[in-house]
Amino acid sequence: MDWLDEVKWDREGLVPAIAQEAGSGDVLMLAWMNRDALAQTAERGEVVYWSRSRQRLWRKGEESGYMQKVHEIRLDCDNDVVLLKVTQLGQEPGKTSIACHTGRHACFFQRFEEGAWREVEPVLKDPGAIYR
Amino acid sequence: MDWLDEVKWDREGLVPAIAQEAGSGDVLMLAWMNRDALAQTAERGEVVYWSRSRQRLWRKGEESGYMQKVHEIRLDCDNDVVLLKVTQLGQEPGKTSIACHTGRHACFFQRFEEGAWREVEPVLKDPGAIYR
Repeated sequence: MDWLDEVKWDREGLVPAIAQEAGSGDVLMLAWMNRDALAQTAERGEVVYWSRSRQRLWRKGEESGYMQKVHEIRLDCDNDVVLLKVTQLGQEPGKTSIACHTGRHACFFQRFEEGAWREVEPVLKDPGAIYR
Repeated sequence: MDWLDEVKWDREGLVPAIAQEAGSGDVLMLAWMNRDALAQTAERGEVVYWSRSRQRLWRKGEESGYMQKVHEIRLDCDNDVVLLKVTQLGQEPGKTSIACHTGRHACFFQRFEEGAWREVEPVLKDPGAIYR
């Protein structure tokens, strides 16, 4: 059986894909993949998601230059969640990587504190300078 | 505005929630939360998911004893994914924790290798001994 057939795609043909930074272990983001996105990710060695808002394949970094190099692709016990071990490219060497379109390291920059969501991570680069 | 109203629940009233082990940084699992699950998780300090298969609230560990203590609750840039920093409870002190119902440390034990999914993580405890 084709490895792509073993994935339990949801009724929209998607699965959630978590990107975890290989070096730091940080969870960078979660986006979605359809069959083509996962196939291309495996083939290219760089992450391709399915953009639900734009309804098209989205090569991560195609606009920002912040691509994700794939080290491992994993599947969970229910075959319906993908975990990617990646190197987040695009930032200058030695600097904290940027995965989030807000110019932050990771997308999970809001922390629940005393009944509210607080932004607790810095913007490393102005998004206006990332998306020209 | 209520912090729970800021979450963008999908059309089924759910968001994906990633559980990451606080000490190791390992991504343990992804499950789903509805409004009640997230509210109870914040209030109890232990993770409560929404079981899509059973269509009811699922206090993680309610059967296995393998509960998840919450350290942080984070929300992503689109307000539609939750990241939980947790301590995975239930295993004997000093031993690798068990989050997966298969008796493994984490749910992501299948790795893509040469065109196929391979099980690459050991079963730490017989599931038959976990779910009595």
